[in-house]
Amino acid sequence: MAVYTEVTFPQAQQLLSGLDLGELQTLEGSALGIENTNYFLAVAQGGEVQHYVLTLFERLTAEQLPFYLALMQQLARRGLPVPNPVTNPKGQILHKLQGKPAALVNRLPGKSQLTPTPAHCAALGATLARLHLAARDCPLQQEHLRGLAWWNATGPVVQPFLDSAQGALLRSELAYQNHVAESSAYAALPRGPIHADLFRDNVLFEDERLSGVFDFYFAGVDNWLFDLAVCLNDWAMHPQTAVPEATGFRALLAAYEQVRPLTGPERELLNAMLRAAALRFWLSRTCDYHLPRDASLLQAHDPSHFERVLRERIAHPVTLSGYDLTPTT
Amino acid sequence: MAVYTEVTFPQAQQLLSGLDLGELQTLEGSALGIENTNYFLAVAQGGEVQHYVLTLFERLTAEQLPFYLALMQQLARRGLPVPNPVTNPKGQILHKLQGKPAALVNRLPGKSQLTPTPAHCAALGATLARLHLAARDCPLQQEHLRGLAWWNATGPVVQPFLDSAQGALLRSELAYQNHVAESSAYAALPRGPIHADLFRDNVLFEDERLSGVFDFYFAGVDNWLFDLAVCLNDWAMHPQTAVPEATGFRALLAAYEQVRPLTGPERELLNAMLRAAALRFWLSRTCDYHLPRDASLLQAHDPSHFERVLRERIAHPVTLSGYDLTPTT
Repeated sequence: MAVYTEVTFPQAQQLLSGLDLGELQTLEGSALGIENTNYFLAVAQGGEVQHYVLTLFERLTAEQLPFYLALMQQLARRGLPVPNPVTNPKGQILHKLQGKPAALVNRLPGKSQLTPTPAHCAALGATLARLHLAARDCPLQQEHLRGLAWWNATGPVVQPFLDSAQGALLRSELAYQNHVAESSAYAALPRGPIHADLFRDNVLFEDERLSGVFDFYFAGVDNWLFDLAVCLNDWAMHPQTAVPEATGFRALLAAYEQVRPLTGPERELLNAMLRAAALRFWLSRTCDYHLPRDASLLQAHDPSHFERVLRERIAHPVTLSGYDLTPTT
Repeated sequence: MAVYTEVTFPQAQQLLSGLDLGELQTLEGSALGIENTNYFLAVAQGGEVQHYVLTLFERLTAEQLPFYLALMQQLARRGLPVPNPVTNPKGQILHKLQGKPAALVNRLPGKSQLTPTPAHCAALGATLARLHLAARDCPLQQEHLRGLAWWNATGPVVQPFLDSAQGALLRSELAYQNHVAESSAYAALPRGPIHADLFRDNVLFEDERLSGVFDFYFAGVDNWLFDLAVCLNDWAMHPQTAVPEATGFRALLAAYEQVRPLTGPERELLNAMLRAAALRFWLSRTCDYHLPRDASLLQAHDPSHFERVLRERIAHPVTLSGYDLTPTT
């Protein structure tokens, strides 16, 4: 939530010079980013001013970055509005600043919509489907590191922090998800690289046009439906009751399906993956809440929100017949 | 290479009290550990003094730790000499200190052997095979994150730092390893959780008895032969010429095979995996060398060592017929 590593104007100008990018006009620390230090740069190029984001990686090491950078490059090349890492004349995509690995990307326009309308949900749904299709043949793939195996590993670690009702919920949900994962419908789910963390604050809009998707540092290969479920849980549920907001929910799904129709097994497992997506963030937020990496820097989210989402999805399963998915065009 | 996070005597005593472990006698910061802060604790329990290691995780978050802790617990339960995380009365395995996730483990006796004799190599080989067998049914498994997919992703990132001969070597080796990975022999390699970083400084001995294996934070599921190859490259090659030291090499392999005989595909692919293991550390050391995470803390290894190992394995393949593997008993 803050700039961790100071970068001076001359240091940033030196990086720009090595990248042959022009003259630094302004350098501004960003409050965004929990795990990285971000600076916004305005750069004079010819008669124009271009905007960049300089990211210094505080947690991820140079060794952990290639997958994410390769995925962003592929998506950018295919026209998705994602940060595209700048390569220097020698072909280097990762730079070094203040002893830390750093990347420079184009700054995406727009701002986050924390109270999205159905139009925003539709734009998100269409972009998500395009992202799935554009990423699927990315030659560099890493498993989704916050998937089923991680839920199984993390359950016993967070169990001691839960009360008995929460503990029972966690155990039964893990049993359910492992049961689902052995089904033939699950095996038939289409898979590929997913964003896996596409919350409202990782998406930018100019009015109703989706102008940016960023923060790919949880991306990995998993089933596409899980990614869609993460979005539906965050974009189209009532924030207090966790009841689906039918219009936004339908708009997101319908727009997704206009680009890539869901398969039969995906329709069958929608509620299971909505539960899976709630479980995943309930687990990580419980970790973060009770075992923060650095209390002074991490603004821990309330883990109970996703516990509520999970309970609601169990009590009131979402079935597609309950949401008219006739394309709205 | 240093203590990053200060822990005071009262803070350490408070943790011990919560774990019901006794009275802290001494607290000593350790110079070991690149990614963690380690303290050695002497603790009075009844009439005895027990020794522990307190680890504060600087890079890994609480969310990343469950796999590694579960693996260590399983191995310790099965009698392997590995750190066994202490659980508090509530069942918590991860603690919090100075806002960082922390674990307390038994301190293993002994010291590292940087110039191992064949007897040390044999002890290592036998322990490695026991580790593979004991870990294979660990219910919590994570892929090896520094495996083939990572080599493919990282190649283009380090390519700009290499001269043309090195660049050509890297490209051809990646092509070779991808070719190997498509072979039926490779598909037949036995797999399971591997340590993946079992260098001499991660093993402790009391004389010739192996008394400890630690640093499981690169562990993951991959083929067992790769793990054996990492060990052979580090324990039984001449440090300058990278020529195998026949006696130690043979002793390590023979002792491994006394516990678990290699399969036909493993014998066939031994040299390929020696190359793979050299490639893996050539890549990561090139990353670390040119893009250190924090120049002041990381002591970057010379990447050229593993380039030399790789060239030597290509020029002079190791075949098992060249190393008499008749058990030495």
